[in-house]
Amino acid sequence: MQAAQDLRSRIRAGDFGRPTAGQAPGFVQANLVVVPQSAAFDFLLYCQRNQKPCPLLEVVEAGQVEARRLAPGSDLRRDVPRYRIFRDGKMVEERTDVSDLWRDDFVSFLLGCSFSFEKPLLDAGLEVRHVTRGSNVPMYRTTIPTRPAGVFSGPLVVSMRPFPPEAAIQAALITGKFPEVHGAPIHQGAPEAIGIADLSRPDYGDAVPIHAGELPVFWACGVTPQEALLRAKLPLAITHAPGHMFVSDVREEDLPFFHNRVR
Amino acid sequence: MQAAQDLRSRIRAGDFGRPTAGQAPGFVQANLVVVPQSAAFDFLLYCQRNQKPCPLLEVVEAGQVEARRLAPGSDLRRDVPRYRIFRDGKMVEERTDVSDLWRDDFVSFLLGCSFSFEKPLLDAGLEVRHVTRGSNVPMYRTTIPTRPAGVFSGPLVVSMRPFPPEAAIQAALITGKFPEVHGAPIHQGAPEAIGIADLSRPDYGDAVPIHAGELPVFWACGVTPQEALLRAKLPLAITHAPGHMFVSDVREEDLPFFHNRVR
Repeated sequence: MQAAQDLRSRIRAGDFGRPTAGQAPGFVQANLVVVPQSAAFDFLLYCQRNQKPCPLLEVVEAGQVEARRLAPGSDLRRDVPRYRIFRDGKMVEERTDVSDLWRDDFVSFLLGCSFSFEKPLLDAGLEVRHVTRGSNVPMYRTTIPTRPAGVFSGPLVVSMRPFPPEAAIQAALITGKFPEVHGAPIHQGAPEAIGIADLSRPDYGDAVPIHAGELPVFWACGVTPQEALLRAKLPLAITHAPGHMFVSDVREEDLPFFHNRVR
Repeated sequence: MQAAQDLRSRIRAGDFGRPTAGQAPGFVQANLVVVPQSAAFDFLLYCQRNQKPCPLLEVVEAGQVEARRLAPGSDLRRDVPRYRIFRDGKMVEERTDVSDLWRDDFVSFLLGCSFSFEKPLLDAGLEVRHVTRGSNVPMYRTTIPTRPAGVFSGPLVVSMRPFPPEAAIQAALITGKFPEVHGAPIHQGAPEAIGIADLSRPDYGDAVPIHAGELPVFWACGVTPQEALLRAKLPLAITHAPGHMFVSDVREEDLPFFHNRVR
């Protein structure tokens, strides 16, 4: 737990502003979405209807800034390395601290992130390309629609990792064990079938090379709500910047028990 | 699908008012909770925080009465064999039709029910006592608290099925495959450890005999929200009567795909 707490301390102090892939290995990382209370029912329902891209780990109610279950002592206004500010459906700026924008009616949603299954992939001997390169994972808008809920709708966003065909099978089996962090892939092999024209030009994150004979494998991504925020046109909303996640104190091996126990 | 639709038709026509265990075998049955929009965020969050007792299958928004994903053409005001009406935190009456109580601001929540895993148990050669006897499953209030959300809080309610020790292991493995309908048991063997003083006096449903050498096995139950409604003291709320479920068109074998696909 020390590694996660140390990283959050560095982030809070302004000493770490990079993507968090590979940082505090073994600890669950989370996507952040913050909306005013007036949109909170719609967004909670959007998550319920789109569990592959939006696997909810914790909801922090209005008036609170601490993710008590994921990270006691945390402060959602300062513990994410980079935030994005959305106004009226436009992403207007990025910041490393959103304390002075915070309002008492903000409700925060923390969603599972595919970074949490990368250690199990590496442990199985698979090469995860963007981890090898030390870059951000490539993410793409698709033509697969999400299920709408109130003001929220929009396309599914996916993250992509290339694997040789047999490793892609292993990757599907391994990630399928972690539904709390997007679970099994949603597609592989034919990016054009899900509306991705050019893998070398991701909509978020950094491109990675795909070697001859490798399949691009696609997982539902927690950046999906950012597309929904562009369409919802709320006066104000806040998210993490893609790849710059909230790092929790929960160990990845405890994920299967996160929702499946009663005490 | 015909069996489920026929049963809903009989219920709507007032020709079937009994518990639904064992009816339309193979089709998913659901618990119903209806609250005014003003309490809908709190209740949705309560479900998110208590997924074992409250595994959400579908939310039907204000102004709608049809569960489009679970049962196209359904009418939530008439398709449950028996309803319970809650006023100011008291269960005041039971009805077989709630059309004239319905309001445009009602939001309906359909939660998975353990009846959905009884066919797999029977298929594995296990005896399910209350099915053998044709009675309602016994349900008990426990001393395990649920995680509160807004106005909702209260004790976990469990359903109980007795099994010989080795069958109890099988039952845990089988039901663990169905997290959408409460999943694996939460306790077995020592009812007093979870606050149940007398198995012969269930709080809901009917008692069943437990033979020598059998373990009582306990599953989180979708009646849990009814305890939370008693405490929330909403002016008006509606649920199914315990054991009298909403029968859907979804096949039990499709449950694993219900939340885990994107199209």
